[in-house]
Amino acid sequence: MPARGDHDARRRDVSEAVWQVLAAKGFGGLTLRAVATHMGSSTGLLTHYFPSKQALVRHALEIAQQHTAGRERFTSAGEGLPGLRAALLDVMPLTPQSTAMNRVWISFWDAALSDAELAEVELQRYERWRGMLRPHVDAAIRLGQLAGDPDDVDPDDIVATAAGFAHGIVVQAIFDPARFPAQRQIALVDGFIARLQR
Amino acid sequence: MPARGDHDARRRDVSEAVWQVLAAKGFGGLTLRAVATHMGSSTGLLTHYFPSKQALVRHALEIAQQHTAGRERFTSAGEGLPGLRAALLDVMPLTPQSTAMNRVWISFWDAALSDAELAEVELQRYERWRGMLRPHVDAAIRLGQLAGDPDDVDPDDIVATAAGFAHGIVVQAIFDPARFPAQRQIALVDGFIARLQR
Repeated sequence: MPARGDHDARRRDVSEAVWQVLAAKGFGGLTLRAVATHMGSSTGLLTHYFPSKQALVRHALEIAQQHTAGRERFTSAGEGLPGLRAALLDVMPLTPQSTAMNRVWISFWDAALSDAELAEVELQRYERWRGMLRPHVDAAIRLGQLAGDPDDVDPDDIVATAAGFAHGIVVQAIFDPARFPAQRQIALVDGFIARLQR
Repeated sequence: MPARGDHDARRRDVSEAVWQVLAAKGFGGLTLRAVATHMGSSTGLLTHYFPSKQALVRHALEIAQQHTAGRERFTSAGEGLPGLRAALLDVMPLTPQSTAMNRVWISFWDAALSDAELAEVELQRYERWRGMLRPHVDAAIRLGQLAGDPDDVDPDDIVATAAGFAHGIVVQAIFDPARFPAQRQIALVDGFIARLQR
């Protein structure tokens, strides 16, 4: 039993080190050597957990997804556009934690562009995220919150536009935190939502 | 004189190989070895041109900027919002050439996040790009094209929102060309512009 406990504790240490390396260097800087250095251990020990670079990247993806799923969320004041607003704020780099998370996912874009399997993972992640935004847009249409003729509104296009806007602000804010403090990011989301509104 | 011509021709070959590696593998996959393999030459020859990884990355940045500056542009049908529309379409991955260009710049985000000097380059690139969008937004305000009270409109916020929207659509389109064909990208830009309009 103690051996089992040691084993689990060691796995947690390894996972934590993988996350720290990801947050500092992104997927591009994720190597067995970097994780080993962070743990003060040998790369030999780590090959026990990760027999290949691919295995390391897969584990890193799981950890990044856990961090993303486990983050604090905004609560929405209502259905439709207020829900969409909260969902967009959920991805903004408003705190050091969400900045680290975004930094990791931006680096994953590059990794995914050089690897067909990872590109498919990223395509699916986007589909899932757009799928999470979609019910808010559907509710906004149903509740008559959107500007324009409801028959002319394509919910998929509103979702893609909102997802695009959010990620594009994320990238600008990550590179230029002085020009994009949390307060301005929130104001930009509010302005975007206001322009969708009738 | 012929020696000089040979020298220039070789430089062009090297630059072309750097661009091909960038387009295929991004900044993350840019190494002397990859460029040498692409040219069928030795890495030794390339160290003559690039004494360090930093020198290679700097040259790659110049080439990427030349390709970006030299790309075909949309002509605008008028001042203000039509000009903004054309400027946003200019960055969309509507052709194989602009897809390659965007793939390169997305990979640069990761490179820049791990390197303070490159992060400053990216911050300046964004400032320059927002600076190019700004006159269109100023004209739109002056011409009374924007929705809302002109005194409440912050041109910097409109510019950041437009830049964010465009890059966010770029990323989605790069990963999911089947869901984001050229025609849909153009429709999304048109929808975004329409929602800015009074």
